[in-house]
Amino acid sequence: MIIPSRGFEVSEYENRLNKIQKLMFDSKMDAILLTTQVDIEYYTGFKTQFFQSPTRPWYVLIPSDGKPKAIIPTIGESGMRETWIDDIQTWTSPNPKDDGISMLLSKINSLIGKNKCLGVPKTLESTLRMPLGDYEYLISSLSGVEIKDANKILRKIRFVKSVAEIAKIRHICQLTSQGFIELEGLLRVGESERENCQRFKQCLLALGADDSPYIVSGSGKDGYGSIIMGPTEKIIEEGDLFIIDTGSVFDSYYCDFDRNYAFGYICDEAKKAYRVAYEATEAGFKACQAGNTTSDVFNAMNDVLQKGGALGNTVGRLGHGLGMQLTEWPSNTATDNTVLEPGVVLTLEPGMAFLPGKEMVHEENIVITDDGPEWLSIRAADELPVIQ
Amino acid sequence: MIIPSRGFEVSEYENRLNKIQKLMFDSKMDAILLTTQVDIEYYTGFKTQFFQSPTRPWYVLIPSDGKPKAIIPTIGESGMRETWIDDIQTWTSPNPKDDGISMLLSKINSLIGKNKCLGVPKTLESTLRMPLGDYEYLISSLSGVEIKDANKILRKIRFVKSVAEIAKIRHICQLTSQGFIELEGLLRVGESERENCQRFKQCLLALGADDSPYIVSGSGKDGYGSIIMGPTEKIIEEGDLFIIDTGSVFDSYYCDFDRNYAFGYICDEAKKAYRVAYEATEAGFKACQAGNTTSDVFNAMNDVLQKGGALGNTVGRLGHGLGMQLTEWPSNTATDNTVLEPGVVLTLEPGMAFLPGKEMVHEENIVITDDGPEWLSIRAADELPVIQ
Repeated sequence: MIIPSRGFEVSEYENRLNKIQKLMFDSKMDAILLTTQVDIEYYTGFKTQFFQSPTRPWYVLIPSDGKPKAIIPTIGESGMRETWIDDIQTWTSPNPKDDGISMLLSKINSLIGKNKCLGVPKTLESTLRMPLGDYEYLISSLSGVEIKDANKILRKIRFVKSVAEIAKIRHICQLTSQGFIELEGLLRVGESERENCQRFKQCLLALGADDSPYIVSGSGKDGYGSIIMGPTEKIIEEGDLFIIDTGSVFDSYYCDFDRNYAFGYICDEAKKAYRVAYEATEAGFKACQAGNTTSDVFNAMNDVLQKGGALGNTVGRLGHGLGMQLTEWPSNTATDNTVLEPGVVLTLEPGMAFLPGKEMVHEENIVITDDGPEWLSIRAADELPVIQ
Repeated sequence: MIIPSRGFEVSEYENRLNKIQKLMFDSKMDAILLTTQVDIEYYTGFKTQFFQSPTRPWYVLIPSDGKPKAIIPTIGESGMRETWIDDIQTWTSPNPKDDGISMLLSKINSLIGKNKCLGVPKTLESTLRMPLGDYEYLISSLSGVEIKDANKILRKIRFVKSVAEIAKIRHICQLTSQGFIELEGLLRVGESERENCQRFKQCLLALGADDSPYIVSGSGKDGYGSIIMGPTEKIIEEGDLFIIDTGSVFDSYYCDFDRNYAFGYICDEAKKAYRVAYEATEAGFKACQAGNTTSDVFNAMNDVLQKGGALGNTVGRLGHGLGMQLTEWPSNTATDNTVLEPGVVLTLEPGMAFLPGKEMVHEENIVITDDGPEWLSIRAADELPVIQ
């Protein structure tokens, strides 16, 4: 396996910045405030696991022209100085009296221009990673400044992946596919979901994943009832259907797909549901053409699921965007209608209840190119694997 | 190693609820809105890795009396039904038109009583995990309802750990200490920071950690300049000082401590700084008595660092609370002044620059008991280990 180079050329960040500044111009925004790990890393290249500590806020401002500006705790200064960012202001955090807010306020005021408008992510799938009270103080101090949602333009830029981004996602998809191939020899009846999942996590690390922060499983006689809980201490038994879903990471980019296994034997309904979900994925893949929409992809999969006897779906969608987060905008739903274009990476995730309380969920990762869709993950087996 | 049982008795959740409801009564709050993974798990026992997907919001309301109430996406319903929560409302998410907000609004209105007050976490170390636009709509629709900060009372409850919580933290601390002992035999000159850290992660999983989501390293000739970036591709060389800091997890509870190593040989300044930080930890430990404050602990450590020739500290504090998050309130600073009591778990984290741009940071985890402090981590070596 050829390992993609880590990090990006500065031109990658310049491209991202140029694209968002064009949309800011169209939206008449003077600056955008970024507070989350992913948004900050995407525009600056500042890569740290330290956002797992909720203590300190981190601020980056995208101006209408020129490079992003960082207002961050001193603990991050030496790291930020190694990125392409020049304008870095720091304060000693945590400081309950003024945790960077007066410094941030002053910087925003210096960037507000004729539009008198600051962009802040406000809509679905966005979060403000700073104390709410500090945000309210900030906004009340920005007199005469309009606050507009920046989420819709930020997500539009991240939606289309560059060649370098796709290489990283492809790598973690291929590596994880190899892990799933090896997993068939590692799964054990008589051991718990947790023990089986931990072996998979160790296998993925040994294969070269940076991390595998999301490994979830469900299992039960004939089928499972949830795909987001677990792994639990439940012991895997003969006749169980077992799902493992993983978001593993290489150089900040995720894969997100699952595999299903039966142990010893399995009911015919589960075998049939597996085939239905497999065929739904095929149909979704064919619909992944530039110019089509996420709703076309949804409808292609949903038709197969409905004809295959689906009793419903608790997931609320049939796949989603993928990149620096386990799930990204958009969603494959009946009403999403986002137009696909080359460079878009999606998960195809057809799922259905095939008996009351028993679900079957498949998932693959794909990228859209000028010549149609390409699989990033190695396709699941076309019949439900039964581990003997 | 005896592995603590997973999960908690229902009485653990009842105790937490009783405590917060007493403080809500004193604060005249009719309900508190919870949106984050940790707050929701703390009061309901709903344990899922799925919060890594930013797509869907999750809501739990703590009423002034009675059990917490969940308003969550259907994808989580079967999982929430396995907790002690009875009142569970669901909607099919993601739904851009109304992602649970009208359901949440109606439930809040039903809980608002004579105080006409809703608590929302607003202050330092808290985040609102829901779209800001939805929050603004919610607040504007709650006419006549005062919104008060709930963070100060929520953190007060989580500050003091139960016997069952301490057992989990002690377990991950002991297991990680064992990992650091084994690490001395696993570290390799001529390999990168990343390769060395990945071996440590695999070691911790093999020893029984659920996960090791935070493994950060720094290294350099004579010393390192940051403790929050990395691991990088930098190759470890003779004469380097190397730090690994880890937050590993058992059953949702963290350890957070580091270890320092030199390779081949090391300058005298680094050896001396190691001793200073070691002695600062000893002094901090002795100050960890019920009735003392976090500032007493800070001052005890800071005195030793200053006398030992500290050139400064970029971290902004000398340790912090620890539990379900890598870092929790409070902070060991000169002005924090939080009074310590039995059941409080802290990190002691003395750090200083000993040459320009070269830092030495130690860290241990302790718990405060009626009879004084106890180490949870196995104490670091009293002299800087030099790997030959």
